[in-house]
Amino acid sequence: MFRLISREGKARLGEYTTPHGTIETPVFMNVGTQAAIKGGLSATDLKTIGCQIELSNTYHLHLRPTDTLVKRMGGLHRFMGWDGPILTDSGGFQIFSLASLRRIREEGVYFSSHIDGRKLFMGPEESMRIQANLGSDVAMAFDECVGIPAERAYVQESSERTIRWLARCKEALEKYNAEEDAVNPGQVLWGINQGAVFHDIRVENMKRIAELDLAGYAIGGLAVGETHQEMYDTIEVVEEHMPADRPRYLMGVGTPGNIIESVARGVDFFDCVMPARNGRHGHLYTKNGIINIKNEKYAEDALPIDPECGCPVCRKYTRAYLRHLFKAEEALALRFAVTHNLFFYNSLMAEIRASLRDGSFEQFRGRYSKTLDQRI
Amino acid sequence: MFRLISREGKARLGEYTTPHGTIETPVFMNVGTQAAIKGGLSATDLKTIGCQIELSNTYHLHLRPTDTLVKRMGGLHRFMGWDGPILTDSGGFQIFSLASLRRIREEGVYFSSHIDGRKLFMGPEESMRIQANLGSDVAMAFDECVGIPAERAYVQESSERTIRWLARCKEALEKYNAEEDAVNPGQVLWGINQGAVFHDIRVENMKRIAELDLAGYAIGGLAVGETHQEMYDTIEVVEEHMPADRPRYLMGVGTPGNIIESVARGVDFFDCVMPARNGRHGHLYTKNGIINIKNEKYAEDALPIDPECGCPVCRKYTRAYLRHLFKAEEALALRFAVTHNLFFYNSLMAEIRASLRDGSFEQFRGRYSKTLDQRI
Repeated sequence: MFRLISREGKARLGEYTTPHGTIETPVFMNVGTQAAIKGGLSATDLKTIGCQIELSNTYHLHLRPTDTLVKRMGGLHRFMGWDGPILTDSGGFQIFSLASLRRIREEGVYFSSHIDGRKLFMGPEESMRIQANLGSDVAMAFDECVGIPAERAYVQESSERTIRWLARCKEALEKYNAEEDAVNPGQVLWGINQGAVFHDIRVENMKRIAELDLAGYAIGGLAVGETHQEMYDTIEVVEEHMPADRPRYLMGVGTPGNIIESVARGVDFFDCVMPARNGRHGHLYTKNGIINIKNEKYAEDALPIDPECGCPVCRKYTRAYLRHLFKAEEALALRFAVTHNLFFYNSLMAEIRASLRDGSFEQFRGRYSKTLDQRI
Repeated sequence: MFRLISREGKARLGEYTTPHGTIETPVFMNVGTQAAIKGGLSATDLKTIGCQIELSNTYHLHLRPTDTLVKRMGGLHRFMGWDGPILTDSGGFQIFSLASLRRIREEGVYFSSHIDGRKLFMGPEESMRIQANLGSDVAMAFDECVGIPAERAYVQESSERTIRWLARCKEALEKYNAEEDAVNPGQVLWGINQGAVFHDIRVENMKRIAELDLAGYAIGGLAVGETHQEMYDTIEVVEEHMPADRPRYLMGVGTPGNIIESVARGVDFFDCVMPARNGRHGHLYTKNGIINIKNEKYAEDALPIDPECGCPVCRKYTRAYLRHLFKAEEALALRFAVTHNLFFYNSLMAEIRASLRDGSFEQFRGRYSKTLDQRI
């Protein structure tokens, strides 16, 4: 499913094929948590802004509208009108970040819904069942995401349990894919590496999950409290033990600079809510750094957000108009800002791929790795 | 500028030409109060949903971002990226409905901004100055909109003052249009008939303002507390005295049934915030009546909002998905709902025009005048 096309240092140019199309990597996945992009973007807009793969959320969709309803409506692709690849996370991260009254047991996690407090249970089999009902192309393993800092003994215990859960995930998904009414029988499972910032636990965990011969591997549990340097160090340590012929996904990361630096360390897939969230606050990406469009100095600025940008907003509207929309609290402000920021991220990935194609990635990295994250 | 093509009874098929294009009438004007459509629709979306003329708001744009800024940015068309016709209302209605501490004098109205309480003044010359700065194609007269019920003596006094204000509007706009840096020197003035539900005051007012030989005439001060029957009666009385060769605009009206009934009484132009506001509450128009998409019964409904509708939402998305977006409080819910409802209104007008073209308007009226307003 993954084809490695070329390398520059550890950075990889590749292709990943799913039942809903082939993705060029490195790639940024556009986040549609509840089967919708924040800011009012539609599935049609995702095509326009260069999205190759959409990411939805198992925990949220299980609670509302429920995965069984989505299955009856023909699966997530049909439900939300997106015919490209979809990856679903496992729900683990949201159970640990949103839900309350958590009790972790060998069988899974008991917790209360963040919407109505209803008592729920999710283990590896339940997470796979939900993702099978959604019919995404890539299902993520059900894991525990340990916050950082964390006690070594607890991280060790959690890592062992997550590995046992992964074996159960694999078995469950194989079973569900074989069912006659499977929504997407070509759905595959990606494993998730955990171990906080303990390098030996990370490496041991990676070696063990690599043995399961899964379709892809993620590095989870980062961008949850450690420094950027700790994150990069952890990626470097883990990457050496990741199968070279499988895609690597760094979960929940990050800034443009984080992405460039992680590509340089061999990562292929990314996702992050940051471009949409920043957009909704008026923080917009440009090739020179991040601007705050609400700033007075843009009140009569007739330039587009980023004169170098080819997004539908920059092709037609001025900074002055966008600033007015923010000040007047018009919904269009959020839509325009999210459109621009996601287009920026998708274009950044396209430029990274182009630089890998012609061997100039290190040059690109030197020019943009630091400057894109600056607020100007 | 107005060409009457044909009549069926009092209903009129026509064409109105502005510096930014020709409009087929009867027409519904899509409301972009603050130079943006509620629900996150862009100027590009307006084209997609069949909008022929956009309506923006003098009072709101004067306060924010200010009309002088809009003028420096090249006028409202360029500022908001809409190259079709624009009508601006005069600010009068908002001063009387939104602003506080109003004092009405012969010269104009003293009031406080609803945003920051700042003391402001607007009279006929100020309203025309603002609308000239915005550069709309049609500027509306600065008038007093009297609430209903109202004292006869006050309505009489107000009507007289509004007529004196109208003469000042005409003189002011002629002067501004002659200025070298006029944004839209082809901008025209439409007068507004007032008089609450006092038929003799309405008629006298209409006769007097018709003498000013303006490019169009509106009936204002309706849909502010009177019954539908009182509104229709007033239109019938006034219509007889409106110049047949000028467009007639019924301000702030209304439901699909109101529009059909008013077309039958000789009205050409309409505007209303209702389709956008109803949309944001999940109330969606169909050819069978109004549905509440949040209703449980749509949870697994695979039909589009209206199977007969050709809007971008109905062509691609299900009721089940739209209901989910509302329940999950996604911004996309509002955008889809407003898109559908405005498309419905624009299509309704296109069907009215088609029926006038082939002489079947009365048949159309009989079939839809009552049913479209029903909640089902």
